[in-house]
Amino acid sequence: MAYQIPRGCQDVFGNESYKWQALEQTLRSFCYMYNYDEIRTPIFEHTEVFKRENDSSDMVNKEMYTFKLENSKTSLTLRPEGTAGVVRSFVENKMFANPDLPAKFYYMGPMSRHERPQKGRMRIFNQFGVEALGVKSPYVDVETIVLAFSILKSLGLNDIKVCLNTLGDDESRANYRSALKEYFAPYVDELCGDCKRRYEQNPLRILDCKVDHDHECMKNAPKMSDYLNEASQEYFNTVCELLDKLDIPYEVDDKLVRGLDYYTHTVFEIVSMNSEMGAQSTVLAGGRYDGLISYFGGPEGMSGIGWALGMERLLIALEAEGIELEQKPALDAYVMCLDKEARTYAFEVLTELRAYGYRCDMDMMERSFKAQFKAVDRAKAKLAILIGKSELEEKKVTVKNIAHKEQETISVDELIPYVDSLLEEKSHHHHEQEGE
Amino acid sequence: MAYQIPRGCQDVFGNESYKWQALEQTLRSFCYMYNYDEIRTPIFEHTEVFKRENDSSDMVNKEMYTFKLENSKTSLTLRPEGTAGVVRSFVENKMFANPDLPAKFYYMGPMSRHERPQKGRMRIFNQFGVEALGVKSPYVDVETIVLAFSILKSLGLNDIKVCLNTLGDDESRANYRSALKEYFAPYVDELCGDCKRRYEQNPLRILDCKVDHDHECMKNAPKMSDYLNEASQEYFNTVCELLDKLDIPYEVDDKLVRGLDYYTHTVFEIVSMNSEMGAQSTVLAGGRYDGLISYFGGPEGMSGIGWALGMERLLIALEAEGIELEQKPALDAYVMCLDKEARTYAFEVLTELRAYGYRCDMDMMERSFKAQFKAVDRAKAKLAILIGKSELEEKKVTVKNIAHKEQETISVDELIPYVDSLLEEKSHHHHEQEGE
Repeated sequence: MAYQIPRGCQDVFGNESYKWQALEQTLRSFCYMYNYDEIRTPIFEHTEVFKRENDSSDMVNKEMYTFKLENSKTSLTLRPEGTAGVVRSFVENKMFANPDLPAKFYYMGPMSRHERPQKGRMRIFNQFGVEALGVKSPYVDVETIVLAFSILKSLGLNDIKVCLNTLGDDESRANYRSALKEYFAPYVDELCGDCKRRYEQNPLRILDCKVDHDHECMKNAPKMSDYLNEASQEYFNTVCELLDKLDIPYEVDDKLVRGLDYYTHTVFEIVSMNSEMGAQSTVLAGGRYDGLISYFGGPEGMSGIGWALGMERLLIALEAEGIELEQKPALDAYVMCLDKEARTYAFEVLTELRAYGYRCDMDMMERSFKAQFKAVDRAKAKLAILIGKSELEEKKVTVKNIAHKEQETISVDELIPYVDSLLEEKSHHHHEQEGE
Repeated sequence: MAYQIPRGCQDVFGNESYKWQALEQTLRSFCYMYNYDEIRTPIFEHTEVFKRENDSSDMVNKEMYTFKLENSKTSLTLRPEGTAGVVRSFVENKMFANPDLPAKFYYMGPMSRHERPQKGRMRIFNQFGVEALGVKSPYVDVETIVLAFSILKSLGLNDIKVCLNTLGDDESRANYRSALKEYFAPYVDELCGDCKRRYEQNPLRILDCKVDHDHECMKNAPKMSDYLNEASQEYFNTVCELLDKLDIPYEVDDKLVRGLDYYTHTVFEIVSMNSEMGAQSTVLAGGRYDGLISYFGGPEGMSGIGWALGMERLLIALEAEGIELEQKPALDAYVMCLDKEARTYAFEVLTELRAYGYRCDMDMMERSFKAQFKAVDRAKAKLAILIGKSELEEKKVTVKNIAHKEQETISVDELIPYVDSLLEEKSHHHHEQEGE
């Protein structure tokens, strides 16, 4: 069937679209307070932006929408995540030269991963994320975590916790990596295919494996914390102290390594403890990346940090906790046309109301009085504006206040002030519109 | 260079991102008044959704991002426009069974066309559009045109006009098509390659050709208006009468056929007469489509209408008329840390202000007093909050009101009410946040 939505994708419409808008509005309002600007990067990039040398992640190795157009040598990839594009843009637009760093951004929009679809895991899904680029400081790390935690709390999620770990700097990671290679060497043949690859590319990620999770050898694997150099340990201590000061509840989890290879120092997740979330309990995740900016051609030693959340999954988490977002709002008025001859007059009245900022609609199906009244009900209209033959002839309108079950017939010239008075809370909106 | 943005794409950041948000907010607010709900369809669809039999348009034939993933037989196409996805969704989700028709939607987001990039024509561009599906009525046509015109007027565009035409119903179109084939037969060898194809697939589009525009034969080509049957003529007359009633200025242009094959009856464009727009003067365009809903498997005879505008091009049109949209807003407060020891305290103050809904930031670069003060200037902060050794020791903060050049040192417990009083206009925002 060619005219079906592609597998793992969804249409958003009806009440759902109002939920999405409410969620996005909340996310934007927090970024406004925290001084994070929006950045919009393309939905596809050159493949090299995502496919970095020696990257072991499933996302890069198995799940990318990569293609070449006919007669073109350029390999393009639909963005599977937001960070790479933002870092590419930061470097390409020389934002590292800005006197005020970190450059703080948020993004939201569709990402594409060719995975097996399941609940909370779509092929096209929407990510919201933030990045703070250009300053390496535990204060910046904590700012991003506080932002994340505050957003989720403000949305009403209670059943959440911050899981925190450090991967240390390059030196610490290199030492740990050697220790892991040595430790896992006798077991590597028993591990899954992915882990065999990870053993070569990034043995840290073996710790994260869902297949080998219960393998005997996992228990006594070396711990990152034993391989941190002093600077890395101190950095992490400051992050923890600041979180304590700000009363952000967190748990240090030394198995937390995250699925992306580029992380250094602080990595974190916010997970939902709600049982309905099942295997998809991670609502938000992020970490610091010391090497990514220079990888893209930016200044050596310049570091960034960011996190992202899947908006579909967040909506599931909200639903699991019984939190309701916005529904489709009621109409201010529904114009009922009760006579064929009055149709154009009714349409003029409708257009006038809209020009004054009222949210309204009118029957376009030439339905009976009764059928139109059902439409008024379904639209939860506050007012029904009845227009029939006598209204047309006398240039009047009959306004029925649905909640008060009262109606009055007035001159059409009095309509706007009369509606203003009935729907007082709307009148400032109407004046705003006029003033534009 | 692999780490560059793909050709014909752009990053949006800094002031630009605030312009985009302001534009989108205006578009949404009009849809709110007109009772159009948002719909979000995937950024790619099965290729068949866009590539319809015998479609002559350049968009479908030359400009689509079509690809198959390795090991997959499914051909996917990045959406080049919004209508097809919306109609696919309308049918797939059986929205035609809704008692209240037309189903009215708006959409906005990225579309992809592999064209030669030029000013106002990007490979990834953003479209905003509306669709009203399920009712064939001149009132619906005019509602969409009034919505379009009101939006552009409200944004401040003055130098615009509505160009209008009708392509009639199937019968009228078929008659006109035969007349055109007969008329162009002697000339077809002299026309461009595209027109040779159009001659077979959709000879109406020859009238629209930019290459053959000045060819001798264009002058005396048959006119659509001579081939309209009575019902089509009457339909168009009603559209024109309603536009007259509502004082929407328009011009009937019988050469207007639009680049998409599926249009029937009313087609229209809104063009900017501003000279800076050059060849890209069409700001908005749309039309009615009688056949598209049944093509996608919906009820026979059910019709829809819609229009779309390119948001990048609209921003160019606004700029050409000197209309300025929102800039990056000022900060409420910038926290200046004047002593290393006071850093954590300053960060707590910052976090507190944000928790109360204020838009603020803090130096994260451990800069000098002077350098931090320059940052206050650049952020146009209303208040500078100075925190040094004595403030730390006495649990105080020094608040400098930048506009009034006054400063006061107060207890940190008084900070929020004090800032409330200084930034009165913000205080309702802060209480809203508290109430959430």
